[in-house]
Amino acid sequence: MTEAPRFLHAMKAPAADAGLAVTFDAPLVLDSGKQLAPFTVAYMTYGALNAAKSNAILICHALTGDQFVASDHPITGKPGWWTSMVGPGKPIDTDRFFVICANVIGGCMGSTGPADTDPATGKPYGTSFPLVTIRDMVRAQKRLVDHLGIEKLLAVVGGSMGGMQVLQWAASYPGCVRAVVPIACAARHSAQNIAFHEVGRQAIMADPDWHNGEYQLYGTKPSKGLAVARMAAHITYVSEMALQRKFGRALQNREALSFQFTPDFQIESYLHYQGASFVDRFDANSYLYITRAMDYFDLAEEHGGHLSEVFHLNAPRFCIISFSSDWLFPPAENKRIAHALNAVAAQVSFVEIKTDKGHDAFLLDEPEMFATVRGFLNHAAGDLA
Amino acid sequence: MTEAPRFLHAMKAPAADAGLAVTFDAPLVLDSGKQLAPFTVAYMTYGALNAAKSNAILICHALTGDQFVASDHPITGKPGWWTSMVGPGKPIDTDRFFVICANVIGGCMGSTGPADTDPATGKPYGTSFPLVTIRDMVRAQKRLVDHLGIEKLLAVVGGSMGGMQVLQWAASYPGCVRAVVPIACAARHSAQNIAFHEVGRQAIMADPDWHNGEYQLYGTKPSKGLAVARMAAHITYVSEMALQRKFGRALQNREALSFQFTPDFQIESYLHYQGASFVDRFDANSYLYITRAMDYFDLAEEHGGHLSEVFHLNAPRFCIISFSSDWLFPPAENKRIAHALNAVAAQVSFVEIKTDKGHDAFLLDEPEMFATVRGFLNHAAGDLA
Repeated sequence: MTEAPRFLHAMKAPAADAGLAVTFDAPLVLDSGKQLAPFTVAYMTYGALNAAKSNAILICHALTGDQFVASDHPITGKPGWWTSMVGPGKPIDTDRFFVICANVIGGCMGSTGPADTDPATGKPYGTSFPLVTIRDMVRAQKRLVDHLGIEKLLAVVGGSMGGMQVLQWAASYPGCVRAVVPIACAARHSAQNIAFHEVGRQAIMADPDWHNGEYQLYGTKPSKGLAVARMAAHITYVSEMALQRKFGRALQNREALSFQFTPDFQIESYLHYQGASFVDRFDANSYLYITRAMDYFDLAEEHGGHLSEVFHLNAPRFCIISFSSDWLFPPAENKRIAHALNAVAAQVSFVEIKTDKGHDAFLLDEPEMFATVRGFLNHAAGDLA
Repeated sequence: MTEAPRFLHAMKAPAADAGLAVTFDAPLVLDSGKQLAPFTVAYMTYGALNAAKSNAILICHALTGDQFVASDHPITGKPGWWTSMVGPGKPIDTDRFFVICANVIGGCMGSTGPADTDPATGKPYGTSFPLVTIRDMVRAQKRLVDHLGIEKLLAVVGGSMGGMQVLQWAASYPGCVRAVVPIACAARHSAQNIAFHEVGRQAIMADPDWHNGEYQLYGTKPSKGLAVARMAAHITYVSEMALQRKFGRALQNREALSFQFTPDFQIESYLHYQGASFVDRFDANSYLYITRAMDYFDLAEEHGGHLSEVFHLNAPRFCIISFSSDWLFPPAENKRIAHALNAVAAQVSFVEIKTDKGHDAFLLDEPEMFATVRGFLNHAAGDLA
């Protein structure tokens, strides 16, 4: 096992702190039956671990997120993706808590993923990288938490795919976490969710620059396909109401329709920007692997579909947060989790926040979410120093 | 002006009646200011026109529809797309009414579109074809109706983009139609609708076989891009509930997850089928043009956004039908039209049908829709022979 600051393969020279990474030699045994060895987990920490090692909070990132939750992104130079939530004096208060955030296995920001070199061949894994699941991602995180000498996390917090990992933590390691905050997520991926992901994957795979996933060997990038995938996905992250409010049918830098196929409408320019800026920071194969991990997520599946049987009697306390206009992971899906927990008499609070901002609300300025997380963590922390 | 049965350029040998077509030499003046000449309108008719020419009903097709509303499709050999609605004894009863359905301008089933030869160059139009609007489509239909010697249509009926054309008929030619039935549509395309269309267009244009729209000259077809566009669009045609009910997380011909990128889930196989079967019958450039026409549709725009000003005092009587789970053209958008008509004291009935089948409900077995259309047309027909 080796630990060292690590330059990300995507970067020539990092623009900001590229964080830490630990490489494990002992294999990660995956749900597929395959093994990954060695494997690296890249991560960031914020704040200080107390002497009792009892103030650690793990944050799990979403599909296109990474470990740079509260510090500048080393590629884009932009602020961390959850600076409104995490930092000194923020709801997840780094003056008080030791915050860990790790890039998921299969990702492209330093944790082992398809863009890395397969030690068996000396070539990039590409699509020979084994499929990983949400549980595999959590297994890798558990190794990191063990490595940091933390026996019990104070909390695990995350939204969207991060929320799936939070649920998986509660299911896999209930004795290792006091409190969990799954936000804007579900205990299973729906048919519609899978459908949107499959469209994105097909767009990537249809790009001739994808080269069956071996594009690194060809010196190409399936950027057009990845941009289309991102554009389609982005529509699902926002509500119809918010799009209408923000863009409506407003034109982009013109007085009248152009009668051409260039973007006439602001919503088109906005989508183009979302696509173009994404391909600069994200690996297309990682996008395939991580979307597939989400598709495969169905927490109750191995319990015959009975979600309540997933959670043990020693379940951590739950704070489930959903958003009224989230049509990707609708409040009803979040409520299902609360009902399952009620059935085993777990401690659970459920909050549905009224907003028109859709799924992405968890990344935005939502005072009720901030107050809820702050209050819940204060309560869970109890009499911590 | 010439009229003749016409082989469609997409066909070697038609498997069924390829219908009629009329070519107009006098130009079609388009909203863009450009002109199209000569231009052909391909169409089908069912039933017989009465002596008074008072029993004609025009049906307008949706984005990927065509004139084969109630007879076998000459390429696929499949039954017409609205055989449940149109035929002897059906709600639009061809024993009683003379039904006309024309392929839209810009389409690919015989009416002049981007795959046709530009007489000025002797080469296929490709993207040099002028952008057309919903109003241009309706202008072309009006020429056909005039050609058939019909001064006043009994009704114009259509769903989705067909419904947009119905609204445009009421706005452009209120004196030429007695009754209109816009189904599952809106008076404007929303930001979300434009966004989904732009994703589809980008998928097509990203396909290297698109060749800037000149793929006919290269002997290629951007089938992968068009399939992705169709898959993305198809998700919007069905409700989340219906997808969950029909497919859920059921696996396709396998007992367990494959841990590969091949389709594991039935919803994936279903989408693949939707994409693959579509590219055989549809032209990619036509898809670009027709989606753009829908994006441009905003009936109230030239009236300062006041929809009620669109409709004159001699507006035809309206029967507006919407579906509760249609998230592409939600009932609220349909209701806006009814309110605008109420404001000018037009005769309007509004029906919201409870169904979980989403937007595509207008093509499916919806007894309440059938009964509503039948009753409304009987009433509109009054004492017709």
